[in-house]
Amino acid sequence: MKQSSHSITFQTTGSSLLDITGPVRMWVREQGLTEGLLTIFIRHTSASLIIQENADPDVLFDLNNFFRKLVPDDPRLYRHNAEGPDDMPAHIKSALTNTQLSIPIVDGDMVLGTWQGIYIFEHRAHAHKRTISLHIMGE
Amino acid sequence: MKQSSHSITFQTTGSSLLDITGPVRMWVREQGLTEGLLTIFIRHTSASLIIQENADPDVLFDLNNFFRKLVPDDPRLYRHNAEGPDDMPAHIKSALTNTQLSIPIVDGDMVLGTWQGIYIFEHRAHAHKRTISLHIMGE
Amino acid sequence: MKQSSHSITFQTTGSSLLDITGPVRMWVREQGLTEGLLTIFIRHTSASLIIQENADPDVLFDLNNFFRKLVPDDPRLYRHNAEGPDDMPAHIKSALTNTQLSIPIVDGDMVLGTWQGIYIFEHRAHAHKRTISLHIMGE
Repeated sequence: MKQSSHSITFQTTGSSLLDITGPVRMWVREQGLTEGLLTIFIRHTSASLIIQENADPDVLFDLNNFFRKLVPDDPRLYRHNAEGPDDMPAHIKSALTNTQLSIPIVDGDMVLGTWQGIYIFEHRAHAHKRTISLHIMGE
Repeated sequence: MKQSSHSITFQTTGSSLLDITGPVRMWVREQGLTEGLLTIFIRHTSASLIIQENADPDVLFDLNNFFRKLVPDDPRLYRHNAEGPDDMPAHIKSALTNTQLSIPIVDGDMVLGTWQGIYIFEHRAHAHKRTISLHIMGE
Repeated sequence: MKQSSHSITFQTTGSSLLDITGPVRMWVREQGLTEGLLTIFIRHTSASLIIQENADPDVLFDLNNFFRKLVPDDPRLYRHNAEGPDDMPAHIKSALTNTQLSIPIVDGDMVLGTWQGIYIFEHRAHAHKRTISLHIMGE
């Protein structure tokens, strides 16, 4: 049984989903494990992780739009406004999605379904650098 | 330290919660580990995983009802309507719950609380086949 | 490769977030692993786990307030009312957040970002005892 750890920093554009499946898969393959468990952890509280459909870009638009309507950028709704009207909503949208995802590895690859992609969900209005930590364990 | 991987396909009925605790526990026990970590991953983006109360069926009804009201099957709200009015809401309800769950194993069994059951949350209106990947690691 | 398991019981106050980063970090350090994976699992369905900003207490207030407005304590909305008006909303708020979190360990500590804290999110109106299970695996 062996393990490896790594981190990757991505540049997001504001309020959107960034497909990181390719870089994550490349790192997994480089570790050369046949079977095991991959964990992805995002080191932020105003951006999150999500697995979603990778076929129709309208799905990503609708997802982002739903969360923006559910958690409006309206300072009258929040006490925490010092970092801008989009900051507290970003924390809430992170809480509603995921800080961490674990994915089994079988036959040397993640067991993602055909239409599943891994995304960083940027909740802030402007572009940010976002770092994920990767951990893999297996044989 | 050893590990095993497996997958199980379930038939859901439309828009409801399916208790999969029994089949998951059976597979865990067959692996014969005393201590370790179980990971459950669902290979879909319009059904999800959830741990919830297994005592009163009204809890499952209320849960499903809450999500159906929060994310209505109304095509005017979404761009992605090609797969039916229940498809985009299903993606959103998946994003609000879980694609993956990990549960520690102690004394040969999952550390679930007395009232905790593991469920597949089917978000599409009609019945579907849903596949989960299982991974266990420990001793 | 080695592993350890543990459980800790916390006393919450009603409807609020309890920072458990300190006790979790202390247990992680006692295990003496340099690299690995920590999993935290809460054995309840009316309280949950969340990673959030640990700097401004207003963030925790706004988070709790958002969830209380999204899922009101109004018995007319639910069938399951036998355990009090705050019980079914607590199950829903748990479903919207996390029952489990996994965090990679690097250099002997969790890879939490500078502003990330680990919280138990108590959703019931009154104080409760809440037990988390911890599992760590690595070297």
